[in-house]
Amino acid sequence: MSVDAPLPSSPRLMVDLDAVRSNYLLMAARSGMASCGAAIKADAYGLGLNEIAPVLARAGCTSFFCAHVSEGMIARQILGHEMEIFILNGVQYGEAPLLRQKHLIPVLSTPEHIALWQEAGENAPAALHVDTGMNRLGLPWQGNVPDMVKDLNLTLVMSHLACGSDPAHPMNRQQLERFAVIRTAFPGIRASLANSAGILLGDAWHHDLTRPGIALYGGAPLDEGGPNLAPVAHIEAPILQVFTLRQGQSVGYGATYTAPKDMTVATVAIGYADGLRRDASPGGFGRIHDQKVPLVGRVSMDLSTFDVSDLTKPPKPGDLLCLLGKDLEALAIASDTLSYEVLTGLGPRFVREYKGCGT
Amino acid sequence: MSVDAPLPSSPRLMVDLDAVRSNYLLMAARSGMASCGAAIKADAYGLGLNEIAPVLARAGCTSFFCAHVSEGMIARQILGHEMEIFILNGVQYGEAPLLRQKHLIPVLSTPEHIALWQEAGENAPAALHVDTGMNRLGLPWQGNVPDMVKDLNLTLVMSHLACGSDPAHPMNRQQLERFAVIRTAFPGIRASLANSAGILLGDAWHHDLTRPGIALYGGAPLDEGGPNLAPVAHIEAPILQVFTLRQGQSVGYGATYTAPKDMTVATVAIGYADGLRRDASPGGFGRIHDQKVPLVGRVSMDLSTFDVSDLTKPPKPGDLLCLLGKDLEALAIASDTLSYEVLTGLGPRFVREYKGCGT
Repeated sequence: MSVDAPLPSSPRLMVDLDAVRSNYLLMAARSGMASCGAAIKADAYGLGLNEIAPVLARAGCTSFFCAHVSEGMIARQILGHEMEIFILNGVQYGEAPLLRQKHLIPVLSTPEHIALWQEAGENAPAALHVDTGMNRLGLPWQGNVPDMVKDLNLTLVMSHLACGSDPAHPMNRQQLERFAVIRTAFPGIRASLANSAGILLGDAWHHDLTRPGIALYGGAPLDEGGPNLAPVAHIEAPILQVFTLRQGQSVGYGATYTAPKDMTVATVAIGYADGLRRDASPGGFGRIHDQKVPLVGRVSMDLSTFDVSDLTKPPKPGDLLCLLGKDLEALAIASDTLSYEVLTGLGPRFVREYKGCGT
Repeated sequence: MSVDAPLPSSPRLMVDLDAVRSNYLLMAARSGMASCGAAIKADAYGLGLNEIAPVLARAGCTSFFCAHVSEGMIARQILGHEMEIFILNGVQYGEAPLLRQKHLIPVLSTPEHIALWQEAGENAPAALHVDTGMNRLGLPWQGNVPDMVKDLNLTLVMSHLACGSDPAHPMNRQQLERFAVIRTAFPGIRASLANSAGILLGDAWHHDLTRPGIALYGGAPLDEGGPNLAPVAHIEAPILQVFTLRQGQSVGYGATYTAPKDMTVATVAIGYADGLRRDASPGGFGRIHDQKVPLVGRVSMDLSTFDVSDLTKPPKPGDLLCLLGKDLEALAIASDTLSYEVLTGLGPRFVREYKGCGT
């Protein structure tokens, strides 16, 4: 459900396509000699595959990573037939003909995937996912992988880092060493290990193709530090009511928050149905005229309340509260999660606006 | 972004319309002499306004509650012109003509709302929201409300319970008493206080019109106990890989989970982009052949892993893992939230199927 008309009462999600382009170019530069692909799964991390994929293509990206076959089909429609589109979740029974028809490249992770792709014939290109320690998807690196896939037309061998967000984690080097073993078994086949965090780990992790995701969308790939990325997602939501909360009065469901003193509170037309998580209170905040305003009381489905007592100029109904932007990571932390989940959790009720031409 | 083709690799969300009907009829029966409306905001709590609204109408509902004007416009298209549609968030500057054109009834909560509605002329029906202690939206009950609205064509006076989910909370009776004061000031005007929880509080809370939400969608209105509601939302997601996790091996991002013994693990094509929250692990679970299987390791964006060691018959790739259904509340609790947020957080990647005719 979405509405195109930008009604004053609707929250807006503005996606900065110039920022996506700038982040892609930064990740491409940091990928060194490797080609830089892009993870566009989950509707480009919730921000709009239809608008973002062409921007990445114009910025020079030619390799795209989806999770689902369904996503790959949409990406193919958007990107045309020149681009390489990988399906990270592989292939399920009955899907191989569709993948071939759309020139989608399955990432084969299991003996069943391999059998399905082989049975479908024609020897169309496939990628191979070898598990080097994530223990989620992939053929075990210790197994006799080359024998299992000897009849395949492999175009890429890949693995995935489990702890890349923590550069000091010993698992990064361990996975790199295991991947080196596998890579040796596939001479001449392109190799890919690095997600956004992996790109930042250094040249040794880059191989032939990197596949950043979160960094493109302005989220921090590392638990701490990392490059300055351009904020991509900006929310504006209208203030519905401004009122005085007297000392001792409670606000919101469960009456969990009690005013320690007289306060000015603004009720805003955004709630957890829009992706402002219940976890965000306490600790979360928005901005009005770039000044921080803390969430107070529980976030409701369609509404939330903010303490605007400290604003130099009190807001009035119809004024806008801003969320995300440069505060994406801070809001994710206040919500006990990652920017990834905040972005993919943005709801369908926003009026979505895309700015910048991305060229 | 959504795909209609029911690909085997896509997770499915099945919505049981007969269950919605049954839950509505139960809430209508429990509403006693009051007419029973329905909250259909946030795309009918994430489950599909387009399919659910007609089912409620056929079950006898004639009063519908949306949050946003944009939702009301869609609801009007779906429901036709006979039904009463309220806009809980009221009216913003410039929207009054649109509301009148679509015969949407704004719930006026602020002096600004009242002024906007009055300025637009014609004296079309409006509802009034009086705040009796929630401190979120509404005119203060202590104020001189009748004077503020004396020129309005009021069709409903309402308020909202802050602590209805806890029947023993003293605030329920306090809000009831305050609402009685307001109601006296508006003789002959319909009154509405009860959401799902309020309906269960008893006759005194029912007034003229109730407006259940969560109960219609199978979520529990009370923190503990309450009537047996029919489960509405059922997820099925395909298993992509089944493998052995050796004692001491870790699984997933951050390597946060280490196998205490050799285990059989299934990786499933559902992740937090679909609404299986990262919070759900540890503690969350799904079912395979109706046997519980615990989540292990962190939930990823597109994938999650479950311990299937205890299944009498080990699953194979392509088998389905079930989520929600009768486990909605348990999964919400494991995810440190409410069923409300689980439902509205369901992602756009599901193939959505509606079963039952709802007649």
